[in-house]
Amino acid sequence: MASPRRPRDDGFFMPPAWAPHSRCWMAWPVREDLWGQMLDAACEAFAEVARTIAQFEPVTMVAAPKAVADVSLYCGSGVGCQPLAHDDSWMRDIGPTFLRDDAGRLAGVDWVFNGWGERYTPYDKDADVARAVLEQLQVPRYASDLVLEGGAIHTDGEGTLLTTEAVMLDPARNGFSDKVTAEAALKDELGVTTVIWLGEGLVDDDTGGHVDNLACFARPGVVLALSSKDKRDANYAALKDNLERLRKAHDAAGRELTVIEVMQPAARRGHQGQRLPMSYINFYLANGAVILPSFEDPMDEPAYQAVAKAFPKRSVCAVPAIDIVHGGGGIHCITQHQPATG
Amino acid sequence: MASPRRPRDDGFFMPPAWAPHSRCWMAWPVREDLWGQMLDAACEAFAEVARTIAQFEPVTMVAAPKAVADVSLYCGSGVGCQPLAHDDSWMRDIGPTFLRDDAGRLAGVDWVFNGWGERYTPYDKDADVARAVLEQLQVPRYASDLVLEGGAIHTDGEGTLLTTEAVMLDPARNGFSDKVTAEAALKDELGVTTVIWLGEGLVDDDTGGHVDNLACFARPGVVLALSSKDKRDANYAALKDNLERLRKAHDAAGRELTVIEVMQPAARRGHQGQRLPMSYINFYLANGAVILPSFEDPMDEPAYQAVAKAFPKRSVCAVPAIDIVHGGGGIHCITQHQPATG
Repeated sequence: MASPRRPRDDGFFMPPAWAPHSRCWMAWPVREDLWGQMLDAACEAFAEVARTIAQFEPVTMVAAPKAVADVSLYCGSGVGCQPLAHDDSWMRDIGPTFLRDDAGRLAGVDWVFNGWGERYTPYDKDADVARAVLEQLQVPRYASDLVLEGGAIHTDGEGTLLTTEAVMLDPARNGFSDKVTAEAALKDELGVTTVIWLGEGLVDDDTGGHVDNLACFARPGVVLALSSKDKRDANYAALKDNLERLRKAHDAAGRELTVIEVMQPAARRGHQGQRLPMSYINFYLANGAVILPSFEDPMDEPAYQAVAKAFPKRSVCAVPAIDIVHGGGGIHCITQHQPATG
Repeated sequence: MASPRRPRDDGFFMPPAWAPHSRCWMAWPVREDLWGQMLDAACEAFAEVARTIAQFEPVTMVAAPKAVADVSLYCGSGVGCQPLAHDDSWMRDIGPTFLRDDAGRLAGVDWVFNGWGERYTPYDKDADVARAVLEQLQVPRYASDLVLEGGAIHTDGEGTLLTTEAVMLDPARNGFSDKVTAEAALKDELGVTTVIWLGEGLVDDDTGGHVDNLACFARPGVVLALSSKDKRDANYAALKDNLERLRKAHDAAGRELTVIEVMQPAARRGHQGQRLPMSYINFYLANGAVILPSFEDPMDEPAYQAVAKAFPKRSVCAVPAIDIVHGGGGIHCITQHQPATG
């Protein structure tokens, strides 16, 4: 299978999450040392996310070859299961980052995956998932030298990228010493012209600071951003700093951003004492819908109001996400959209 | 948005309720002058219907744009909420009547809606719901000149339509002076060849006599029909007359109908003294299931027996419906099925 680097200026770009999808990719939860006794609950929560998204677009669930039949029966009709060896279940990070061009052609970037900076091992099967998915789809694959994950980047589809210093300058990933070099690499790979830098991620976030728990575009020029009003909260300083960065930023079109604050839910801890990465920003846009995490928290309601207002034409679907964040991520982390073409 | 009349003989027909669905549409209760102090109870009852149906097929709940977030959290996972302005909550009557053809294509009839013959105002937002739903689905829309509601018609999917004189000859709707003209219009719009006419509806039925409280097909040639044995009951004469009409009728295939009687529950009155339109016939067929109203009445048991026997392969789900009929309709009235295609 050919895997060239992407030629510069070939017209391919990363479409925004709100552009039409042809499919949503997911992967079944399997890592026993991650989930422990929560594995069954995680399976039920993943299945519920899959079934909900399947109401709006086709869902393909990656599952170990031996597990495909069981997972298929478990998820029910509307969710196809694709046999593929994998170590873990965060499709946003192990799947390809899809690009398209104005002629409607699709391509996929296959990043180097190293377990979020060697935080989880083994990861050799996960590192091969993007390649296998693109091969299955017969979509051209561009192998990148960058260590990166889909959860570390958001785009407005008009040349702007949102990412974090925490991830891009992580010595256990690319070892970039400065943002200039990192930024050049991102522009090169993704066909963007402007990078907006956030700083640190949520505490105890095992990704090392993915942007998909912090902020995302609702449309060009408008960003939803996690926020906290509690100065004693461990996330307060990072979230405040990120909000200030967003308010000072200009996008690829030279616009200032409209920043919509979304208050985080109350802190909760996992079975190993770690703070769970609970963020309303970590949602999935399906065709015509937004699939939002619910935490049975008083902050659910204002968060849902803010997101529904930001996507006024979309159906809003609530899916309980506590049993997902116990594994370290949210609804956005366990999904990867495949853009529609043509 | 183009909205041609439906060409005759284009092969589109109204599939029966028992054919597979891709979705169930509902609308959230909102009309305060209708529900009064019962509004909260109605919300809970509608949510319970939605959650029950969502066990069998996707449910999309239409809600006012400002209410989408709250309604989504209220209904929970499995029920998507679609922002759309509406006046009231009877999706059977304000939604499109879906048609399909043998090639698996979908279309929708957008009837003229005038608040059940000007009984409730305003209705301008409700009158626009069918168009908006079809546009959202990108399904071809046929604008009809007929004042009609989904609750006024039942089909066997094989060319037979069931309706009432009370509705079709209502001077506040179409002003048809005779059944021949009305019948021609129905045949034209719905691709049916035979119309079976019932007479009057239930007393105090604010729809003016919808057939969906009186009788429905269980399958071609078999009809479930509401009945009363109490000669002093205000519904007795109309129900007896309708039973006689059904027993004399022939369907599009020339068959006599097998008529299964279902005894009505004891009369109950609403907060304005009106008799509540309580009918076991007003149920919803979801994929693989029948969602039946329960009234905590001794007649629940024989009605459930009869319906379960008529649908021997379907799950039977009971949902308390008293708090729905206080608003003037039942489970069938608050739902609209979207046929599966392909």
